[in-house]
Amino acid sequence: MRISIKDDNIGKYLNAKALKKADEAYETLVSGKGPGSEFTGWLNLPEKMLSDTEKIEEAAIRIRSNSDCLVVIGIGGSYLGTRALLNYIKSISYNSLKKTTPDIYFIGNDLSTDHISEVIEQIGERDFSVNVISKSGTTLEPSITFRIFRELLKMRYGDDAKNRIYVTTDKEKGLLKEEADREGYQTFEIPDDVGGRFSVLSAVGLLPAAVAGIVIRRILKSADSFMKSDEGVALAKKYAGIRYSAHKDGKSMEIFSAFNPKLRYLGDWWEQLFGESEGKEHKGLFPASLLFTSDLHSMGQYIQDGKRLFFETFCHVAHENTEISIPYLEGDQDRLNFIAGKDVSYANLKALEGTEIAHLEGGVPNIRITFDDFSEETFGEAIAFFELACGISGYMLKLNPFDQPGVEKYKRNMFKLLGKEE
Amino acid sequence: MRISIKDDNIGKYLNAKALKKADEAYETLVSGKGPGSEFTGWLNLPEKMLSDTEKIEEAAIRIRSNSDCLVVIGIGGSYLGTRALLNYIKSISYNSLKKTTPDIYFIGNDLSTDHISEVIEQIGERDFSVNVISKSGTTLEPSITFRIFRELLKMRYGDDAKNRIYVTTDKEKGLLKEEADREGYQTFEIPDDVGGRFSVLSAVGLLPAAVAGIVIRRILKSADSFMKSDEGVALAKKYAGIRYSAHKDGKSMEIFSAFNPKLRYLGDWWEQLFGESEGKEHKGLFPASLLFTSDLHSMGQYIQDGKRLFFETFCHVAHENTEISIPYLEGDQDRLNFIAGKDVSYANLKALEGTEIAHLEGGVPNIRITFDDFSEETFGEAIAFFELACGISGYMLKLNPFDQPGVEKYKRNMFKLLGKEE
Repeated sequence: MRISIKDDNIGKYLNAKALKKADEAYETLVSGKGPGSEFTGWLNLPEKMLSDTEKIEEAAIRIRSNSDCLVVIGIGGSYLGTRALLNYIKSISYNSLKKTTPDIYFIGNDLSTDHISEVIEQIGERDFSVNVISKSGTTLEPSITFRIFRELLKMRYGDDAKNRIYVTTDKEKGLLKEEADREGYQTFEIPDDVGGRFSVLSAVGLLPAAVAGIVIRRILKSADSFMKSDEGVALAKKYAGIRYSAHKDGKSMEIFSAFNPKLRYLGDWWEQLFGESEGKEHKGLFPASLLFTSDLHSMGQYIQDGKRLFFETFCHVAHENTEISIPYLEGDQDRLNFIAGKDVSYANLKALEGTEIAHLEGGVPNIRITFDDFSEETFGEAIAFFELACGISGYMLKLNPFDQPGVEKYKRNMFKLLGKEE
Repeated sequence: MRISIKDDNIGKYLNAKALKKADEAYETLVSGKGPGSEFTGWLNLPEKMLSDTEKIEEAAIRIRSNSDCLVVIGIGGSYLGTRALLNYIKSISYNSLKKTTPDIYFIGNDLSTDHISEVIEQIGERDFSVNVISKSGTTLEPSITFRIFRELLKMRYGDDAKNRIYVTTDKEKGLLKEEADREGYQTFEIPDDVGGRFSVLSAVGLLPAAVAGIVIRRILKSADSFMKSDEGVALAKKYAGIRYSAHKDGKSMEIFSAFNPKLRYLGDWWEQLFGESEGKEHKGLFPASLLFTSDLHSMGQYIQDGKRLFFETFCHVAHENTEISIPYLEGDQDRLNFIAGKDVSYANLKALEGTEIAHLEGGVPNIRITFDDFSEETFGEAIAFFELACGISGYMLKLNPFDQPGVEKYKRNMFKLLGKEE
């Protein structure tokens, strides 16, 4: 396994009673007897997708051959996981650094004209394709954005536009599926039994990943093994048990402090996964993701000395792709020659260790999740780990972790204010 | 004024008693009688900088003339405000969109080797200069990063490297100031009486801004007028009063929900400003910034139905730089022709209005801060507004809003673990 948990700073939150409850919740999850069990298809999604990668890989080859840019239109679960994946396995500066694969632009994730205009400006005269991702096909942001890019494609490519539109949506239902069938767009399925926030290992994340040159089979194999391994399940139970104890003890928040900028969108994806699964019936830990060491210089003061609201989950990647020695400086003007010759990542690890102690002393119990590296395999395990933990954790709170009734409320108001007739 | 507050969803949190307390706190702030008053120089910083822009503008012209890239090395208060400024006035994709000004890379804000390597790779063979920003000159992240880029500059430019290093630091003290004087780097001052998180309108933010072609005098004039105007002060008092009432009522968090991606780093800057100023003595609202509509599809569920921990501050910009009409779609496959012809920003406003109502009904009182546009003038007012409100709000909690004792704790552990002798 490529994931481990360091738990010696979490105290009483790791205990036999919580682990027993986690065992029971896991049984509820895999037996399909819990509420929302019709949305637990993600448990077998990696296995299922392993037999279905060819179509995705072929489309990716076609996009790479005729497009300088891929415009990925999606929001929430149709956006965050894919961006997390690209940042993790490739780079936070993928578009600037990649050599032969297309630029990838994420849009349809807000309603800002400047954002849309700027993506259009960046594409310029270059050839592009569009991957529109929406399970229902009726979400406002991607629908409006798709109107704009559909029109652009038609102006530029005429009838051939339809060969540059790739639709990831429900297998049978929905407005987007209807249009795709009628117009002849290639479609990819978001399975019925997989909710948006659990969909990154479907075509939702895998098509853009394959376009970026990521070996998607490696992600899937590793996620599948993790889901089915005793060690993987035990690790997810441990994390769920700790979260449960903290919640029961009255903690209001979990802070996810990632020690690498490549984890920023994994943190955002984690926020949706846990916030949307557990933030209901006035329950759940509020999930707040931060980026360290950067945010130690902004939110560090509050975590150390502010209201005692939270426990903290550090997330660290043991081996980066590159190594950089801290240079020796003639004259030692900054007094740092005592660490000259050490790798920068050594300083990062010591900052992490120092923070764990300081926050524990400040009254913030914490755990450390360590990922081995930035490989496809480790990313697959990370997704499987958090999804499993989330399913278990949600059932421990005795709620349906797989619905999102609260999301509909602002939408109803919005459509009414926009003048839509019922 | 270019800022307004909509307060009809905040209920009892806006009341005469809180406003009276805000009046008193403001008096404490401007009379210099409160704790930490030696760090209230930011009240007059815009005025002071207005008479000192020439040196910054001249350096910016020199950097633009001999550099394709500017590497800005800084963390916390020496990073977030500058990035907020560049995103707000220019673009979230400044490097991809700007025509004649240098690329700007932010680094020294973490200890990731991959992050550093990738910036070096992006610079490639192009000419570059470095702006290293650190008040003390002893912060680990920028110091290590400066070692790496100092060496790169020397390898590439030899003795001329010193003419490509711009140091923003304390006027007289500190290791960085000593080195700069000895080596002949040009220096810019962070005033003694201005803490890091209040320093964006010093050379900290203004030098990179000027390099990007931003008219810094316009920011400063507008910030200065706001600080000194009755309307500006009244607006800051109102925001501080509402925050105080919410805290007193037992709310644990303030959620800052920005309806435009250009506000992402303004949100991060806001988190540091309030979190570091108030998160002490086990007090203060935990500041959490989100980006809408995007995060409505991730954190929206929790805000609507999770634990009732927070009040919410929406942040909205009334006029974007561009306009995009929602296209009419023959066949109306997505059923959105009823808003065809409307601007995308109209849909954004309706989403905001719908969210305000939904969250209020869900038990989340909220206010809306509206900024007129993305101009230099509005940015100046925004900074002045939040800084004033923060100073007032901190004094209302009866603490020193201008120190950060908790930040030192992990640093001590870290240096010890790194093997530094006391």
